[in-house]
Amino acid sequence: MKKIEHIGIAVKDLEASNELFSALFGKKHYKIEAVESEGVKTSFFKVGSNKIELLQATSTESPIAKFIEKKGEGIHHIAFAVSNIEKEIDRLTKEGFKLIHKTPKKGADNKLIAFLHPKSTNGVLIELCQEIKK
Amino acid sequence: MKKIEHIGIAVKDLEASNELFSALFGKKHYKIEAVESEGVKTSFFKVGSNKIELLQATSTESPIAKFIEKKGEGIHHIAFAVSNIEKEIDRLTKEGFKLIHKTPKKGADNKLIAFLHPKSTNGVLIELCQEIKK
Repeated sequence: MKKIEHIGIAVKDLEASNELFSALFGKKHYKIEAVESEGVKTSFFKVGSNKIELLQATSTESPIAKFIEKKGEGIHHIAFAVSNIEKEIDRLTKEGFKLIHKTPKKGADNKLIAFLHPKSTNGVLIELCQEIKK
Repeated sequence: MKKIEHIGIAVKDLEASNELFSALFGKKHYKIEAVESEGVKTSFFKVGSNKIELLQATSTESPIAKFIEKKGEGIHHIAFAVSNIEKEIDRLTKEGFKLIHKTPKKGADNKLIAFLHPKSTNGVLIELCQEIKK
């Protein structure tokens, strides 16, 4: 794993949270992107070489809607940048980690992604992500 | 804010979690440090230019013990590196954020730190930290 690529934060109202985090970081989000397969609308802020991703549910079936219902707004996941996501999935499976996605899928921000199950990682939802080469 | 300095993760058993996160990152923690004023024992892992801090309570009065009792193990806070923590506290106070520490205090890993109240930041506990020059 190369670095923290981003931290995902579950929010109820993306517009209000964009204002809040703009004030926090002293600069605006650099993009907004909807990921229909996940039922979320996201915005991204850059902080040095890391990013903060705000996630608002766009349907009641979205994992973000369920997370907020159960735990309230707050940190949802940590994403680590990897060079080769398939190799990393193999390595972690062999180490005994439980993967939610055994094969990578397309995520926001031009990435291939896979999540580890938080039951095998001390309650922390971890995402692996690899930049898709254009 | 310059970058994500570290992410703090609340764990019940530091020794067991050190093994788990060593397997996850493919390398061992680089230090263990007790912070008596906070009632915690911590360990640190490097992931690129970011760090992961595992925190285990050493007393039932520790904020980490209370966090685990309420929410279970998991992500506890995000720490952002800042160049001048006093200026940043001033700026954020003027922006309307509520600071838990209005003046910086000594934290783990040779840092001056201050926490923002999660009620003013979408449920996210945010730490500001500035390296102490030796």
